[in-house]
Amino acid sequence: MKHQNHQSLLAADRAHIIHPYLPGSAEERVIMTSGEGCRLTDSEGRGYLDATGGLWLAQVGHGREDLADVAHEQMKKLEYFTSFWEFSNEPAIQLATRLAELAPDPLNHVYFTSGGSEGNEAAIKMARYYHHRRGDTDRTWILARDKAYHGIGYGGGSATGFPVYHEGFAPMMPHVSHLTPPWPYRTELYGGEDPCDFLIRELEERIAEIGAGNIAAMIGEPIMGVGGMLVPPDDYWPRVRETLDRHGILLIFDEVVTAYGRVGEWFAAQHFGVTPDIIVTAKGITSGYVPLGALMVADHVAEVLLRDHGFPMGYTYNGHPVATAVALANLDVIDKEGLLGRAKTIGATLHSELQSQLGDLAIVGEIRSVGMMLAVELVADRTTRTPLPLHADRMPHDVIRRETGVIVRDSAHSLVLSPPLIMTEGETKEVASALRGVLERTDASGKIREA
Amino acid sequence: MKHQNHQSLLAADRAHIIHPYLPGSAEERVIMTSGEGCRLTDSEGRGYLDATGGLWLAQVGHGREDLADVAHEQMKKLEYFTSFWEFSNEPAIQLATRLAELAPDPLNHVYFTSGGSEGNEAAIKMARYYHHRRGDTDRTWILARDKAYHGIGYGGGSATGFPVYHEGFAPMMPHVSHLTPPWPYRTELYGGEDPCDFLIRELEERIAEIGAGNIAAMIGEPIMGVGGMLVPPDDYWPRVRETLDRHGILLIFDEVVTAYGRVGEWFAAQHFGVTPDIIVTAKGITSGYVPLGALMVADHVAEVLLRDHGFPMGYTYNGHPVATAVALANLDVIDKEGLLGRAKTIGATLHSELQSQLGDLAIVGEIRSVGMMLAVELVADRTTRTPLPLHADRMPHDVIRRETGVIVRDSAHSLVLSPPLIMTEGETKEVASALRGVLERTDASGKIREA
Repeated sequence: MKHQNHQSLLAADRAHIIHPYLPGSAEERVIMTSGEGCRLTDSEGRGYLDATGGLWLAQVGHGREDLADVAHEQMKKLEYFTSFWEFSNEPAIQLATRLAELAPDPLNHVYFTSGGSEGNEAAIKMARYYHHRRGDTDRTWILARDKAYHGIGYGGGSATGFPVYHEGFAPMMPHVSHLTPPWPYRTELYGGEDPCDFLIRELEERIAEIGAGNIAAMIGEPIMGVGGMLVPPDDYWPRVRETLDRHGILLIFDEVVTAYGRVGEWFAAQHFGVTPDIIVTAKGITSGYVPLGALMVADHVAEVLLRDHGFPMGYTYNGHPVATAVALANLDVIDKEGLLGRAKTIGATLHSELQSQLGDLAIVGEIRSVGMMLAVELVADRTTRTPLPLHADRMPHDVIRRETGVIVRDSAHSLVLSPPLIMTEGETKEVASALRGVLERTDASGKIREA
Repeated sequence: MKHQNHQSLLAADRAHIIHPYLPGSAEERVIMTSGEGCRLTDSEGRGYLDATGGLWLAQVGHGREDLADVAHEQMKKLEYFTSFWEFSNEPAIQLATRLAELAPDPLNHVYFTSGGSEGNEAAIKMARYYHHRRGDTDRTWILARDKAYHGIGYGGGSATGFPVYHEGFAPMMPHVSHLTPPWPYRTELYGGEDPCDFLIRELEERIAEIGAGNIAAMIGEPIMGVGGMLVPPDDYWPRVRETLDRHGILLIFDEVVTAYGRVGEWFAAQHFGVTPDIIVTAKGITSGYVPLGALMVADHVAEVLLRDHGFPMGYTYNGHPVATAVALANLDVIDKEGLLGRAKTIGATLHSELQSQLGDLAIVGEIRSVGMMLAVELVADRTTRTPLPLHADRMPHDVIRRETGVIVRDSAHSLVLSPPLIMTEGETKEVASALRGVLERTDASGKIREA
């Protein structure tokens, strides 16, 4: 309880840090000082329950000494050397080998980055380069979806499908076309047609319009995260894959959120039974202990990229020894503690807690989940499904955090949850109660009564 | 000496890793296993002397236990929580405060990334957003230079000025225009005119052509790194700054290579006596121990970015507690061991060793340096300054590494050096001798005789 320290930290933060998505006028700061499991403590001594896993990534929970020990040993031995050209290191090789075992065949090749945004830049470049090297130099278009989030580089950010990520930053990267997202709850998007039939027809029409011979790849999150945990119909990805295959278009899965146990499998590709040509991963690969990302690349793509002078782009920290050593240890934890299975069982428990605590509230339109990705979609009216109006100064997730210490995130009129996979049953009840306590005081105008 | 282990690592590497810039046909791998100071050891037990600092970043040298201890402590306490929105953490706040002290006024605001490519994406977005928020919505063009290297995101990568970084990846981000680089040795670039006069005239003409009211910013490395350690005339940056100011165009310094002691100052901006509006940094900020980058942003830019809903982009690992804690400790080492001063003195020693060992060779056109950034430009003919022909299968830097274990890098017909700032005098002699031993066997056709 160092209130004095908190005040000086707060003043220094406001004076010197530009936080993403935070206006300069905002006076509040939550300065985290320690974490253990799903629990966090801030500089005022206040406790929190982390139901977002930081930013969808703390699979194994906070403050683990076993991962810290691995980082310590590797850093003393060899903290870093480049992996460009012929240079390499042991942990990077071991991690690549492990990832190739875990990923569906033929995704046997790994390209390292330091995060998801870097990964999506690389994936778009790989797709275009693959066609270019094969002489298909017109295949430059990228298909994406509205409400997609592919990071904030100029490439991935162009594929991202929200206006706020483009406004003021344009001109973005050309040759990106956005399709309708799969969001079965929002039947109005499909004009009464079966959502999947609509989406595949739209895809075929878009391909015809742009010309298959001009399209490099389609990129998509298997389950859309920032868009609000949008779960497609089971036959969506198999039918997309079949359509793209017929037209020689590559499929890129952006699994930055969904990989490494989040949905109860190593990769969401396995959940949907679909094998893309490239999978972009980050976040859960180290549970956030050290920044790292990895692209899984199929044999037939890698073979082309490795021709001639090889693939001509690399990020400085490519194959970082400490990051890859920690990733290996993190995958071991996921494996040994059975967290793939646990994501399904504890995810189902959390879902049913949310259902029993919130299911009767008029502003709760839908509760949906796959494994430990969950969303509570908020509406003004259950029949019309009109989105709940939001008020920036008093958003439900902010009130929940301030009143209860439970941290959830808002995403496009949904409260989204992606807790550590080690969450206990007791903690799932605490999360659901915290949401109940605030949402039962929230009316159809989005106003939240004081407790 | 684990030859068996080396063979299995090599096979796994070739089967599973896509290395930047390495063709699949390449059989050789150098698998680093440990490092200390400027020395590295590979999986065959062979020793190396690191004269590139990994990729221009190992300021404090390899394998330091003090930095590993800091990472260990922080990782056990709080490995990560997001710094989006109102969330923050102590090491990030302390680092931002420290950076604001070190950077020239008014660069008092810090925006965190995980590396240089992420940083340049962010800087371009900041520059456009700054004008957009002020109502100058046409100011979208970015001025850059040929031979610039600003990373490989689609934004920074578009500003990068080498064809290899664009070919097969296009269309790139629009509204980038490349100017002539400052490279006084190559007088032919300036048609007999004073290089600086030529470059400022060209800049003025380009601004007139595009229209000042359409230009957001100029981005430049104070000393061009990948381009071959190109050092501009002393009056170049002051005159560029004055020109841009007259036209309301922001100046972004890409100091990913030059900051944190590389040129003998915290920032190359201080070396040139010029204050940009944004400085992009990474690499030396942690000496590579953990991936991290930081943008230094001037008060007048930050004030605009922080209006309304704030700056709407953030990378997952923004303000990573372990990365920022290690950065603080790394800056302490640079400070306490006097490495800013040392970069100048040992850099001068290395320069003079190179001069005395290589100065008489006909293929050495120019030896240049600022602090611990050095280049040896190779030519077929000293009078015509024709670049030395290079042969991909037997490049000078590869032969030097294979024969002597000294690691230098080739950059556009120059051998470039950026060793740890702790290099000893004895090691500078070893580096110069290694270069001598190979370059004295290199003829004007670029062929290297067997030893």
